Amino acid sequence: MATGGSGSGTTQERPGEFELIASLFAPLAQEFSGACGLEDDAAYLALTDGLVHTGEELVLKTDALIAGVHFLKSDPGDMVARKLLRVNLSDLAAKGARPIVYMLAAMLPASLEYGWLQCFAQGLKADQDEFGIVLAGGDTDATPGPLALSLTVIGAIPAGQRLLRSAAKVGDAVFVSGTIGDGALGLAAILGQLDGVPQSDADFLVNRYRLPRPRLELGQRLRGLVHATMDISDGLVGDLQHICDASHVGATIEISRLPLSDAARAMLTIAPVWVETVIGGGDDYELLFTAPPSHQEALTSLGRNVGVPITRIGSIDVGKRVRVLDADGQEIVPRTTGYHHF
Amino acid sequence: MATGGSGSGTTQERPGEFELIASLFAPLAQEFSGACGLEDDAAYLALTDGLVHTGEELVLKTDALIAGVHFLKSDPGDMVARKLLRVNLSDLAAKGARPIVYMLAAMLPASLEYGWLQCFAQGLKADQDEFGIVLAGGDTDATPGPLALSLTVIGAIPAGQRLLRSAAKVGDAVFVSGTIGDGALGLAAILGQLDGVPQSDADFLVNRYRLPRPRLELGQRLRGLVHATMDISDGLVGDLQHICDASHVGATIEISRLPLSDAARAMLTIAPVWVETVIGGGDDYELLFTAPPSHQEALTSLGRNVGVPITRIGSIDVGKRVRVLDADGQEIVPRTTGYHHF
Repeated sequence: MATGGSGSGTTQERPGEFELIASLFAPLAQEFSGACGLEDDAAYLALTDGLVHTGEELVLKTDALIAGVHFLKSDPGDMVARKLLRVNLSDLAAKGARPIVYMLAAMLPASLEYGWLQCFAQGLKADQDEFGIVLAGGDTDATPGPLALSLTVIGAIPAGQRLLRSAAKVGDAVFVSGTIGDGALGLAAILGQLDGVPQSDADFLVNRYRLPRPRLELGQRLRGLVHATMDISDGLVGDLQHICDASHVGATIEISRLPLSDAARAMLTIAPVWVETVIGGGDDYELLFTAPPSHQEALTSLGRNVGVPITRIGSIDVGKRVRVLDADGQEIVPRTTGYHHF
Repeated sequence: MATGGSGSGTTQERPGEFELIASLFAPLAQEFSGACGLEDDAAYLALTDGLVHTGEELVLKTDALIAGVHFLKSDPGDMVARKLLRVNLSDLAAKGARPIVYMLAAMLPASLEYGWLQCFAQGLKADQDEFGIVLAGGDTDATPGPLALSLTVIGAIPAGQRLLRSAAKVGDAVFVSGTIGDGALGLAAILGQLDGVPQSDADFLVNRYRLPRPRLELGQRLRGLVHATMDISDGLVGDLQHICDASHVGATIEISRLPLSDAARAMLTIAPVWVETVIGGGDDYELLFTAPPSHQEALTSLGRNVGVPITRIGSIDVGKRVRVLDADGQEIVPRTTGYHHF
């Protein structure tokens, strides 16, 4: 955990960078000897010390969160930390990988208070313990812009068992884990766009937005059962389109098959237009995958074993694009198919 | 190379994110099959495909650059790209590692023009070719803040041959590569603080600031000859203090022994006060290391072989802090000992 270039900026509110690293971040790395206590210029991942096993390959993923873009400036530090880690872990889950270590680049505005950073470090610690990953190193910098956090996770899979977007085959069934739409509806709730929703439902949806559940155990156990995989971050239809594009196939999904939480189902009953948000809104961090229909029973059983329901929502066909059918079998054309970032 | 969360923001000036990745970044990853053409959610680093050799361990480093903090908003894209890659490669050099792949998180303000990004990608390509590294994956996001770029490099060293900050021993000699102070004087030149300096000298110093030279070959050949190592990014005295802190030793260096470029020497002749900038200013990206004095001849010879002069500037002693002696052997107390980032 070192520092980059010729930064500047001062604040009264929190300790200097070295104290910050020593007090908040070094404890997150103490179980990992390759981090050198965050006191060196780099971290080490030994291939012979039991963290990486013979015959494995590493899986690398980088994802950044920016205040005002991916989270709200008022969000508590521990929730931001856990979301940051979990959106990256969700990609490892979709690749069937087990997590090993992560690197963190934290770009901190001078106004950010030490208490917020303490809470942020506590959130990282909680999720390190939950998901079995540890901080290896990183970088802290002062920024004149909003708080920006970039995280790179490193995981491992058995060599030759990559789960790719591009592996969907015509005739595959399309499956999702968990429930779809909760995250996007939770963001709508935070933005005050949900009228007439019971507080308990709103709380459930907001929690689903703020705290993704990376399906790590499920992902690792999908290896050998499935073809294409990815996690749903940009929206179900948009992300399924990514699978279709990469695999040179089309897909058809049925709205009536979508697994919905009670809160989401209640929303759609009140105002059916929210289906657009459910299928296009993103922030699900559930797994989306294709598999031979003959594997459906095994997949359903696997879902029961790991405590995450698995639902068949459609199929892969010839063609290029994703078709969405309503309860009457009529095609509906979503206004949005996923977030675009520019 | 995927996208994070629910970003937003539009611009007329440049293509959408997927086109941007396909047109500018995917070509940087095409030689590395584990990048999956930047079309999947993660990248793969196989431990069996010849990129990592048996008996090696990985070296990980993350460093971020932010516009207005670490580079100027007016700096051309290729120079920023190369600085970004090189400040990270400089850390790999200090660890004796050879580079393998890197991950990039690019946080792009809507106002940033496509032409600048094209130039940025060209700079990455030039340095990939020069240093034998390749893009593995990453993340692009729109930001309401300044352009921010976080890069994680992965390199490798033979297991058991780590070069640490903490390995300095009492009696060691202290060495540096190249010349010291050019980068910090170059920044002063850009800021219009250098009076009476010939344009050719100013150009040389500015180039040294903008384009660090990671001493990768030298670093790898230092293994077995040296004790503690690091690269000088925050300033010679401050970084040597880091070695002393980590190694629980003190150090004494002599101003008269410092290797200076002709341009820096001319500056010091005009205004000796610039010595403060030379020893405290940072942005050198030269290697700083300690070794038994008996290795001096071998080190000097190695420097000749790789084309980077190596100079003995002092010694490691008992104590805790870095002492700086002037030409008369009197201790001088620098006003600054390195940049602090908060």
